[in-house]
Amino acid sequence: MSSFSKTKMNQVVRVPERGKYDKATIYPIIDEALICHMGLVQDNQPVVIPTLHARYEDNLLLHGATTSRLIKYAQAGNPVSVSMTLVDGLVLARSVFHHSVNYRSVVLFGRGSLVPDEDKMRYLEVFTERLLPGRWADARVPNEKELKATAIVSIPIELASAKVRTGPPGDDEEDMHLPVWAGVLPLKPQFLSPQSDPKLSQDISVPEYILNYMKTRT
Amino acid sequence: MSSFSKTKMNQVVRVPERGKYDKATIYPIIDEALICHMGLVQDNQPVVIPTLHARYEDNLLLHGATTSRLIKYAQAGNPVSVSMTLVDGLVLARSVFHHSVNYRSVVLFGRGSLVPDEDKMRYLEVFTERLLPGRWADARVPNEKELKATAIVSIPIELASAKVRTGPPGDDEEDMHLPVWAGVLPLKPQFLSPQSDPKLSQDISVPEYILNYMKTRT
Repeated sequence: MSSFSKTKMNQVVRVPERGKYDKATIYPIIDEALICHMGLVQDNQPVVIPTLHARYEDNLLLHGATTSRLIKYAQAGNPVSVSMTLVDGLVLARSVFHHSVNYRSVVLFGRGSLVPDEDKMRYLEVFTERLLPGRWADARVPNEKELKATAIVSIPIELASAKVRTGPPGDDEEDMHLPVWAGVLPLKPQFLSPQSDPKLSQDISVPEYILNYMKTRT
Repeated sequence: MSSFSKTKMNQVVRVPERGKYDKATIYPIIDEALICHMGLVQDNQPVVIPTLHARYEDNLLLHGATTSRLIKYAQAGNPVSVSMTLVDGLVLARSVFHHSVNYRSVVLFGRGSLVPDEDKMRYLEVFTERLLPGRWADARVPNEKELKATAIVSIPIELASAKVRTGPPGDDEEDMHLPVWAGVLPLKPQFLSPQSDPKLSQDISVPEYILNYMKTRT
């Protein structure tokens, strides 16, 4: 299955031509987003909480302390919704009405379950490598006590959709003559210079794999 | 009132010393975040949707087409939760366990209502100026038809909390000797060069207020 079905829940209603349902569009957005926002229902009240995530095949992985509200809710198999958004620029039109942003967002739905103890180490490797490729082989891997304190929830992605806006502003024909600058201000998250831990020994320099990773994001 | 009360709903449970309840911490995070993620409940299922927002005093403003799911839900006075997160850097510890991100996030709760027609123009000015200071005076303001198609929902912020992590990694004492680079990779959304609308007349250049704004974000 290379696309998700379109249901009442995941269908993009506003500006439907921006809606995408294929994994080839959706998964790279999930992977590029550093964080996501997860929604849960508590006492009939929606609660939205930001968290880190990683995708493993058709599953979204979340991790946290075994005591965290988000983890306890998700591991119980309650329905969750998760959204991640990349903002690519401000879209400045000649008319206020057509101002917008360029973005790539995903909204997904599923029900999670706890990753069994024996798989935790492997999933933490997925998480760490997704945060920074090469890091797992360099840092000290979790010990038994740390593994025990960490819960990982795997959520098979049941339904998802992406919404994508790209390109210049869409002003109305009758506004094209206005003497107003129109266009896009592209936005991109960029790394600044690495800040060594003040307690770091002077003879340890920033390793190659980190410098390379920073370049891919700049 | 300069702080929100701490309840079961907004209390930061995990790493409670990162929790903040004062407006002086919370409001600048809301204002700096370009987008937010709003949570609603539909058929007992949480749904999280990204959207633009603006703050006006103690209210969060959302806007959209009068037909949008998010707007219809919020204007009906249903309880909503909204979260916005600024990621300030990757925190690389000597141990995998202490890897983290530096971030500033807000989770807030409230119930919205529709802004009356006669106030819409004023609120759209707030929205536009918050997206890009100076833009309202330059672009064509909304006409009657556009105003009619736009709904603005104002949500008095009833409860909110911020969660903030700053600073270097927090490795355990026994890992400090490890030959692993540790520190922070600071991340910042930055503007790239403006892209003029291909249909823009050649004699219109990027105005001063836009160049100034881009500098404040770079």
